[in-house]
Amino acid sequence: MAAEVLACDWGTTNLRAWTLDGQGAVIAQRDFRLGVAKLAPGEAARRFQAEVRPALGAEGLPAILCGMIGSNIGWATAAYVDCPAGLADLAGRLTVAADGVRIAPGLRCEGIAGAPDVMRGEETQILGWLAQHPERRRGRHLLCHPGTHAKWVLIEDGRVVRFITAMTGELFAVLGAHSLLASDAPADDDVAFEAGVAAAGAGDALAARLFSARSRVVGGQADAASTPSYLSGLLIGAEIAAVPALLGEGTSHAALLGDPALCARYARALRQRGVEAEIFDGETAAIAGLWALYAR
Amino acid sequence: MAAEVLACDWGTTNLRAWTLDGQGAVIAQRDFRLGVAKLAPGEAARRFQAEVRPALGAEGLPAILCGMIGSNIGWATAAYVDCPAGLADLAGRLTVAADGVRIAPGLRCEGIAGAPDVMRGEETQILGWLAQHPERRRGRHLLCHPGTHAKWVLIEDGRVVRFITAMTGELFAVLGAHSLLASDAPADDDVAFEAGVAAAGAGDALAARLFSARSRVVGGQADAASTPSYLSGLLIGAEIAAVPALLGEGTSHAALLGDPALCARYARALRQRGVEAEIFDGETAAIAGLWALYAR
Repeated sequence: MAAEVLACDWGTTNLRAWTLDGQGAVIAQRDFRLGVAKLAPGEAARRFQAEVRPALGAEGLPAILCGMIGSNIGWATAAYVDCPAGLADLAGRLTVAADGVRIAPGLRCEGIAGAPDVMRGEETQILGWLAQHPERRRGRHLLCHPGTHAKWVLIEDGRVVRFITAMTGELFAVLGAHSLLASDAPADDDVAFEAGVAAAGAGDALAARLFSARSRVVGGQADAASTPSYLSGLLIGAEIAAVPALLGEGTSHAALLGDPALCARYARALRQRGVEAEIFDGETAAIAGLWALYAR
Repeated sequence: MAAEVLACDWGTTNLRAWTLDGQGAVIAQRDFRLGVAKLAPGEAARRFQAEVRPALGAEGLPAILCGMIGSNIGWATAAYVDCPAGLADLAGRLTVAADGVRIAPGLRCEGIAGAPDVMRGEETQILGWLAQHPERRRGRHLLCHPGTHAKWVLIEDGRVVRFITAMTGELFAVLGAHSLLASDAPADDDVAFEAGVAAAGAGDALAARLFSARSRVVGGQADAASTPSYLSGLLIGAEIAAVPALLGEGTSHAALLGDPALCARYARALRQRGVEAEIFDGETAAIAGLWALYAR
């Protein structure tokens, strides 16, 4: 089948592009090191036409984009849509960046302490996930999109009602590189990870619980090489123990959507705490979401 | 009066030394950039004799030292004393590092998640504070020593029963330098500080609450220059909301011991949350503690 649309998830560090046929199936896929954070003014439009379109044989195709490319450091600002919002709300608010090029808006809701909370890119994966799973378009669902800035999302009858961002991945990266807990060891020790999840307690007093990552080594109870795994478990454990409750939601079941390896870590932590967890691939959800936004 | 003892608080980054008379009063004081973290093996003994003693005219005087100089990267290892412990317990366990030079031990207790908790240096300030305030040697008292690694200490009848370390100061430094919340602005905005304390909630879900430090700026509700103050309030607020509870202690009153400017920030946060706070100077307490250890 011939390509019908060029779909792009254009984020801070990377651009992933697909050509899709008239059923939304992938014909071709390419990645580009064209992160929004590194773009000079005007560069997005120029390189999209000169590099991205030709690489996928997509000259002249309509294009649908999501992610940070719609932020004020991207190609064109796609204003946030306020929650609650679903597919129809977002599809009706696409921003035309250039002839035939449309950008999906992000989502905004009331956050913690009176500040807004925002997402850009994850909303398209969530809409795609709902498109992939029609049975989830009724009732209430708790979804987590783990990452540098993890999102906990409350979905009701197919619309995002509210969400909360947790800087868990960033805390892990910053503490692992620059603090007393810095280490080059891999985070692949399941026993230490589970000890960290347990040490997270009720998700409170994180600054104190973090010290246990040091004192368990100083006290001779653990090898220093297990610190990254313990730290990962402690931070993810603290997140899952406390963030869903801020959504006013009891946590007995959570859908995990995103990078499969990271989702697997979250699933392990959730199950350790008695929460059922299902993992869904973020990339196929992104494709489904971009297709749904285009096709609507 | 003639000098009777050379007293030193010898920490990771700095050495502060005093000569004291026969009543424990200060005769002279000098600081040395001789942090334990930078000492080569053998360097502590050599420079103590060659620089510290002559600078204070303290050749031949007995010396009493506390702090990280008693750790395994210091001059001689002064083994931790287990809690509960008071002045008599520590005075009976001084380590002789050289002729006439004794080092105070640190304290150890059961910490979070089965790991031990430890302190070195703060115990001498706490003993000194008790020596300065005989009325505090009866009953239960909650004391906080703020800093890079803040200590919350439960004292009963003049002995340290238990304590918990919180990496609050380190989190502030690392996030302020290396994260999305990095800023060079000073943390001197009282309104933003108090907003941060309020945003700390119950001291749970810190990774999510941290994102509010970003979203309040992105959402146009606050100036980016206020981020360090807000972050300071958020981290201190999260600490005081949750760490004392881990000691099993209700918090209606806390003694703050340490750097007066930092104690003042903690006092502001504690009072905002309805906790009575009294500030005590850490340096005079350290002197009183070293004197008490020597004199006993």
